[in-house]
Amino acid sequence: MFEMLDAAAAKMNSRVCVGLDPTPDRVPISDIGVFNRSIVDATKDVASAFKLQFAYYEAMGVKGMIILEKTIQYIRKVAPDHVIIGDGKRGDILMTATAYATAMFEVWDVDIATIYAYQGSDTVEPFLQYPGRGVYIVCRTTNPSSRDIQDLIVDGTDGRTRVFDRVADLADRWAGTENVGLVVAATFPDDLRTLRSRHPNPHFLIPGVGAQGGEAEETARAGANEQGGGFVINSSRGIIYASRNPEDFDYEAGRAAELLRDQINDALKPDGLNPQTISLE
Amino acid sequence: MFEMLDAAAAKMNSRVCVGLDPTPDRVPISDIGVFNRSIVDATKDVASAFKLQFAYYEAMGVKGMIILEKTIQYIRKVAPDHVIIGDGKRGDILMTATAYATAMFEVWDVDIATIYAYQGSDTVEPFLQYPGRGVYIVCRTTNPSSRDIQDLIVDGTDGRTRVFDRVADLADRWAGTENVGLVVAATFPDDLRTLRSRHPNPHFLIPGVGAQGGEAEETARAGANEQGGGFVINSSRGIIYASRNPEDFDYEAGRAAELLRDQINDALKPDGLNPQTISLE
Repeated sequence: MFEMLDAAAAKMNSRVCVGLDPTPDRVPISDIGVFNRSIVDATKDVASAFKLQFAYYEAMGVKGMIILEKTIQYIRKVAPDHVIIGDGKRGDILMTATAYATAMFEVWDVDIATIYAYQGSDTVEPFLQYPGRGVYIVCRTTNPSSRDIQDLIVDGTDGRTRVFDRVADLADRWAGTENVGLVVAATFPDDLRTLRSRHPNPHFLIPGVGAQGGEAEETARAGANEQGGGFVINSSRGIIYASRNPEDFDYEAGRAAELLRDQINDALKPDGLNPQTISLE
Repeated sequence: MFEMLDAAAAKMNSRVCVGLDPTPDRVPISDIGVFNRSIVDATKDVASAFKLQFAYYEAMGVKGMIILEKTIQYIRKVAPDHVIIGDGKRGDILMTATAYATAMFEVWDVDIATIYAYQGSDTVEPFLQYPGRGVYIVCRTTNPSSRDIQDLIVDGTDGRTRVFDRVADLADRWAGTENVGLVVAATFPDDLRTLRSRHPNPHFLIPGVGAQGGEAEETARAGANEQGGGFVINSSRGIIYASRNPEDFDYEAGRAAELLRDQINDALKPDGLNPQTISLE
């Protein structure tokens, strides 16, 4: 799955994931389905993935779940090479995780689901029964209170480490399958760097740039693997609410995604310098 | 909220929570909505709470979410004193957790939501903005691989402890609010006892009896607080699939719930002995 995502990123020349997280009180037009389709149209040429945060659809009830379903169908139609991430952060015991995997892959038809591994490997296994689909395990999150549990010091096989690093160790168990990645925040760049150096293989979904404070270039350099790939950077509010004017929200969303794409690509250039940026300064 | 749940338990003389976790291939009749309503009718007099595991409804797609919604409306109508637990194990950063709280309490209208605290206090706070509603934080789970993360040894304020105990410490932060409880498995009775002795206040939702192997009497004694309350024991498969015959599944579900109720109540009798049980032996 993650090979497909890296292939999509190469084809689109973009490691941008657009987060479709609409809230009725912030969306500038009344029809959220139309809003989503407009954002998809405006950003698909400068992004390689779309991420739907399930909470925002669930908060709209059954109507929201229908919008979610139709948005995914629309992306399949107009952007068939793009990867769709279902961000529900699910996780449960084996039987229940199996039902969640059914929901994510068979019902909603996302390519990659985000999951919690607090319940251990049982939570992960059912999702791996689907060839060509994958999971991102929530590892290091963007928010300040992520320290409460994730930063607890535990004994590791090679000295003392932290809970989030042990969660990443768990992902390494399935590293050979190419279907288990990690969610790692942009807002703690040192942790992002450490995780990448200790875990060279898993694909990273990196949220937290833009509205949440992460800086795109630094994030791209810290998150990339040795081949300069192995990650996507998600931006939600920074793209979909780039303008909240009904006249130009889609155009501005496209511009914001394009800017993020360029910042990432610039950061990944071999010498870390971008002549274009320099000439503009 | 948990005072209301204990009041319901006292009124019904039952600490049984019936888990409504239907899967189409196991339910003995074709209409899952009718199945749920039959189980509610058959068990409401011997239970004080119902728990809906969201995964099973999501696995049926939009149709499943409509069944979920209608089942909750039905419980409100025929069992208005009963407490409804939405078992979705949600959790995310502040803005997203706010959307999940909206979904759980305003849209689906459950009384208590289960959540993961892997992202720390940010995840919990939005749910506490609803007076008269509550959360159970997932702490110690029933499955073998729960050891992967939950059992990691960390430094505690009073010596070395485990991750799940630190999650329980987190719940104690809001202990005064009476709206934060814990999910603690029946399948690790020593951990259940330890958690109860270290955390006398939070309400416990205890899954894992019956199909998953936990023993009801021992669980009740280990999970009860000093007043002999402060918990409900959930059984899903053990009740709803007590019979898979379309003719008597509801009757047998009622019997299974009644038996579990009696086992729990017997265990909580002051001297731990039950004359009725003894006379039957």
